[in-house]
Amino acid sequence: MKAITSLDQMVQHLCDTGIQKRIAVAVAEDDNTLGALLEAHQRGFANPILIGDKTRIESVLTEEKANPSDFQIIDIPDHQKAVSEAVRMVRADEADVLMKGLIGTDKFLKAVLDKEKGLLPAGNVMSYVCAVELPKYHKLLFVSDTAVLPYPNLDQKVAMVKYTVEMTKRFGINDPKVALIGASEKVNKAFPYSLDYQKILEMDKVGQLPACTIDGPLDVFLACDKESVKIKGIPTPVNGEADALIFPSLESANSFYKGLMLFGGGELAGLIQGTIKPVVVMSRSESQKSKFYCVALSCLMA
Amino acid sequence: MKAITSLDQMVQHLCDTGIQKRIAVAVAEDDNTLGALLEAHQRGFANPILIGDKTRIESVLTEEKANPSDFQIIDIPDHQKAVSEAVRMVRADEADVLMKGLIGTDKFLKAVLDKEKGLLPAGNVMSYVCAVELPKYHKLLFVSDTAVLPYPNLDQKVAMVKYTVEMTKRFGINDPKVALIGASEKVNKAFPYSLDYQKILEMDKVGQLPACTIDGPLDVFLACDKESVKIKGIPTPVNGEADALIFPSLESANSFYKGLMLFGGGELAGLIQGTIKPVVVMSRSESQKSKFYCVALSCLMA
Repeated sequence: MKAITSLDQMVQHLCDTGIQKRIAVAVAEDDNTLGALLEAHQRGFANPILIGDKTRIESVLTEEKANPSDFQIIDIPDHQKAVSEAVRMVRADEADVLMKGLIGTDKFLKAVLDKEKGLLPAGNVMSYVCAVELPKYHKLLFVSDTAVLPYPNLDQKVAMVKYTVEMTKRFGINDPKVALIGASEKVNKAFPYSLDYQKILEMDKVGQLPACTIDGPLDVFLACDKESVKIKGIPTPVNGEADALIFPSLESANSFYKGLMLFGGGELAGLIQGTIKPVVVMSRSESQKSKFYCVALSCLMA
Repeated sequence: MKAITSLDQMVQHLCDTGIQKRIAVAVAEDDNTLGALLEAHQRGFANPILIGDKTRIESVLTEEKANPSDFQIIDIPDHQKAVSEAVRMVRADEADVLMKGLIGTDKFLKAVLDKEKGLLPAGNVMSYVCAVELPKYHKLLFVSDTAVLPYPNLDQKVAMVKYTVEMTKRFGINDPKVALIGASEKVNKAFPYSLDYQKILEMDKVGQLPACTIDGPLDVFLACDKESVKIKGIPTPVNGEADALIFPSLESANSFYKGLMLFGGGELAGLIQGTIKPVVVMSRSESQKSKFYCVALSCLMA
């Protein structure tokens, strides 16, 4: 498989390989959610199962110029029950992806995280990974964690690396270059993440990580800019060509990707990993395109 | 004064107002440092005092096609002594700005921070502020702290706000909009910075901050994108039009601005504040233009 280097290539790959995934949507009653799904449905790779108030769902579908009879709709007007049913379907392998609709993220994630009936196996770390496309970078940049883990500890950082590498492999990147991001390349106890990074590099040396080329701490310049590597004269196997950036805190990953969405012409696809199946939670302030790409990514990963 | 909205306008303002500042350069022996200074000297707002090995300084100046006799050169080949002399000159008001040349940042800052002979008054916080210019933003974006404070505590955050507001005023922005940046707009004890932000807003209410319009926590979208404010329906006086972003950690501010330099076509001007006079410490991996702007900014702030 040739490496996928853009989000449209990802969509094309789904179409070319005939992938079709069933997406259980909890409280599928808003145009925000349905808009993104409709295009994915038209392109043929997503088969939405819309769970919620049937009258409302049909009304939004009609507004969006879709034919309600083209969709499987499960009439459960109560929000909590709708989420429970969506989660149950994914657990029972009646759906391949879980997607949040018009319900608060907290309530939605509570159902996902339920120890008895949820989607997160005991001991698994839940984390969020984004594939970011930038006009000024020559390939996709996978960024973690932009939405879930506030201050990842060592175990969580290791999980972030594993999930991100796993995602890059689905994109045909066999030996992804992973940069563990810091404010500089220096290991220093004033920056506790840099000590964790040392341990992660040691784990890599003894084969405890999936196959990848990993280094850190590296700043964004050393991670993504070959020229900076030359000028600074700091050799790193990542060499300014990172496929993936692992950030030490939510505030850093989140601000980084949002800056690039606003000022770098970026688009993204993101989802929750660590669960038994992909979980899609879209932010209303993402672009329409990014929402569509989120659905596509979930189908690639399912 | 009309607000300055680009870095070239800042340079033009210096030229128009006839500002000329004396810059003491410690170990001024590299083209990296001298290149940035020469243009500032030509434009007339910087009067460099080059301290270091005279033979080497003259040789670099000649390489850069400048005439050594146009410059004040103080021959002190010993690096440590050269830094001490540069710092002494600034303390004695024989120079208006201190600038780092071909000497390690640690050694240089040690002289700046010296309790007896340095430039940081007892009790002052030292911090780094950048003015970032982005093709996709309608004005300059002041970002703090991109280089000095690893994890600012409350006092340090307050200092960051004060220094940044002080800088915006020099740019003719009388009521700067200051966004205290987080991963989201929620105050939550899982994000300790958000609790500090609450205290800062309380200080603002009772007039303990310089005049500004401040809010937080805000994510980058709510800070810099009016459309996101509308879509999310979260009212904030910053209203997607931030002049300044205060970040909760070095890793977040540093990654944010470096991402924008690489992928958002950004240029910047930055310097150290909190010292009795501006201190310029440039990174070799900044662009030539950004280096020139750093010198210009120091002249504006001196």
